[in-house]
Amino acid sequence: MASPFIEIDPAFVEKTVLELAAFGAVGETGVSRTVYSPEWIGATDYYAGACAAAGLEVHRDAVGNVWGRLRGTTGEKSVASGSHIDSQTPGGRYDGALGAVAALVAVKALKEQFGQPKRTIEAVAFCEEESSRFPNANYWGSRAVTGRIAPQDSERVIAFSGETIATAMREVGLDPGRIPEARRDDISDFVELHIEQGPILEQAGLPVAIVDAITGIRHYRGVIKGVQNHAGAFPMDIRHDPLAGFAEIASGLINTAHRVGRPAVTTVGRVVVEPNFPGIIPAQVEFTIDARHPDPQARRHLYAMHEDLMQEVAKRRGLDIDWNVMIDHEPSPSDPAIVSTLQRVAGEQGVPFMTMASGAGHDSQQMAAIAKVAMIFVRSKDGRSHTPDEFSSVEDIVAGIRVLAAGLHALAY
Amino acid sequence: MASPFIEIDPAFVEKTVLELAAFGAVGETGVSRTVYSPEWIGATDYYAGACAAAGLEVHRDAVGNVWGRLRGTTGEKSVASGSHIDSQTPGGRYDGALGAVAALVAVKALKEQFGQPKRTIEAVAFCEEESSRFPNANYWGSRAVTGRIAPQDSERVIAFSGETIATAMREVGLDPGRIPEARRDDISDFVELHIEQGPILEQAGLPVAIVDAITGIRHYRGVIKGVQNHAGAFPMDIRHDPLAGFAEIASGLINTAHRVGRPAVTTVGRVVVEPNFPGIIPAQVEFTIDARHPDPQARRHLYAMHEDLMQEVAKRRGLDIDWNVMIDHEPSPSDPAIVSTLQRVAGEQGVPFMTMASGAGHDSQQMAAIAKVAMIFVRSKDGRSHTPDEFSSVEDIVAGIRVLAAGLHALAY
Repeated sequence: MASPFIEIDPAFVEKTVLELAAFGAVGETGVSRTVYSPEWIGATDYYAGACAAAGLEVHRDAVGNVWGRLRGTTGEKSVASGSHIDSQTPGGRYDGALGAVAALVAVKALKEQFGQPKRTIEAVAFCEEESSRFPNANYWGSRAVTGRIAPQDSERVIAFSGETIATAMREVGLDPGRIPEARRDDISDFVELHIEQGPILEQAGLPVAIVDAITGIRHYRGVIKGVQNHAGAFPMDIRHDPLAGFAEIASGLINTAHRVGRPAVTTVGRVVVEPNFPGIIPAQVEFTIDARHPDPQARRHLYAMHEDLMQEVAKRRGLDIDWNVMIDHEPSPSDPAIVSTLQRVAGEQGVPFMTMASGAGHDSQQMAAIAKVAMIFVRSKDGRSHTPDEFSSVEDIVAGIRVLAAGLHALAY
Repeated sequence: MASPFIEIDPAFVEKTVLELAAFGAVGETGVSRTVYSPEWIGATDYYAGACAAAGLEVHRDAVGNVWGRLRGTTGEKSVASGSHIDSQTPGGRYDGALGAVAALVAVKALKEQFGQPKRTIEAVAFCEEESSRFPNANYWGSRAVTGRIAPQDSERVIAFSGETIATAMREVGLDPGRIPEARRDDISDFVELHIEQGPILEQAGLPVAIVDAITGIRHYRGVIKGVQNHAGAFPMDIRHDPLAGFAEIASGLINTAHRVGRPAVTTVGRVVVEPNFPGIIPAQVEFTIDARHPDPQARRHLYAMHEDLMQEVAKRRGLDIDWNVMIDHEPSPSDPAIVSTLQRVAGEQGVPFMTMASGAGHDSQQMAAIAKVAMIFVRSKDGRSHTPDEFSSVEDIVAGIRVLAAGLHALAY
């Protein structure tokens, strides 16, 4: 059955995005809104109010996720959509927030244009995804929904400024002992709309993408040790210079990802040299590798090439190298049936689209533990995110929400 | 005329080195003694006392250099020897201090074994060379002796902890307004003994080197700018990753110095990445290059190759690069006649030696502005310096002092 045309009001979309962005506004277009902060309280209150105004049942769960429900006529599991309401410090108006707004707008439009669905549809604003206050929060909001927060986690998740997330929860009236109550086992489908955060749609001249997988991510922390010595008195040929080894390794890792080609990416983002003085051959170089591929087998091959290169260079140069894996997320494929549905309805809504993998992590990969998932990307200006410069046009956002709403309609009506 | 055999007492050498090292002692073998500190006052008092005990006239000049004079019979200009008495934080017992001790021991031995010389011989402990308290002190002690400290310099030289060197001088009873009085125009020859700080003598199996030049040193500070972006969402082929450019440049610079061969050296010692997060393609990489060659023409060629490489890589990768020169010391050749004299007397004293350039900077390159200079290096264990691990054996030190004393004898008697 072809999806009906769905009307989305651009003015309401723009108004809601801008009003939500006022909570934690930084300068003209920035937003700094960490979980459980006063700005976050303001934003969640605003979201709950907007859901209520749209005629949705509002529920705030045990970790502070806000749900707006449109009840269905059957007892079947819910179809849900949303994203996180926290931001980088500062980030922009769109990363996360746009997915929460899009879900609200889509459910409101479905209710107004098609009435009560068969299956319950829910819009959600997850409390936390960015790790911008608690570096090891690890998808606190959506992880609570999947029931994968361990009993001691609230004491182990520590803010950059030292407090535990348990303390932060208590300060906003939430009881960490009740986190398990946020678990849901009655959601069958989850569709997240998010800005692309990359330039692929812009370069393709398309407003929207259907996401068929979230890439696998591994972070290594490596340490190369050599022998610290005087930069003048030690001949080149007898040095054990870890910076020379690091430079060759970093070049090699990056070149490997280039050779493998899209969608492989490898980034060396953090480097710490010791002692870090101009006139001293360093004693050691600590560095990170962020390497991603959405295909499980290609990902393993990429990591094996990276590890072989590090071993080979260090051995040849007489340097000690050691590394550990700090983060290791398996690729998260989208549900093929939902992807097909979204591809179909996008065509029916007349929205030009492409299909791609997400290079960034998202709440959807957590939700995949309890539901079938897929995502919709909206074009990002210059591919920017995690900055006040991030921008998506209202036209592109409306196109994305029409695909989302049509997808929810197909799943729930 | 062949030099006479000169007796140097190993026990006195060892006792003097160890007693001086007690001022600012750190752990078993470390020394932390910055200019104008309480430890420095103790060390200069000790050195003045040792000079007096050896029967030398003691003079403390306007910046705190300590001179021990053995008057000559003629009015000719002095022959001087010495090095700096300050240290790294922590450094070891030998860097600098050994040259001050060696001068004292040599002059004492000459006085005892040969009586009054024709020309005045002076032992000196320079107040400052390491820049370990004031990063821009720039050879404060020997520079004062050459008259090259400008009137405003004492207010411009600022400590890591914020105070001016003028304040530090006043705190130890020195008047910065009198710095010009430290200037000397009556020194014709200066011979500095110093630890090698490198492994060349150790690998050659030799105790001593005659230094025929101090290398030219240039420090660049470079900044490579790219475009900061998300490490997952930006494909490799459209990145402008400054870390990738930096890695290729650092490898290339280091490989260039390898290809040029000894005595060229190039070191990338300091790297600062922004924003320095694992999951973000950096916005910029700041780095230093320390590149040295003792031959003026080869040095210019080395720097031209380095600059060409930086331009080529940045242009090819679409990155912005900029650099400035922070330090640029011309090579300082030793006086050929003194080098010949030292080579001759080393042979006559039966001390095996080689001739080499110094890869590190030394007070001698300042003294070259007012006198003919040369240096003697003593073997360093494992080539280590600027660390409590630095070590030279008493046997090697005695060999070095015998060459120094014989050289001073040849110049002054």
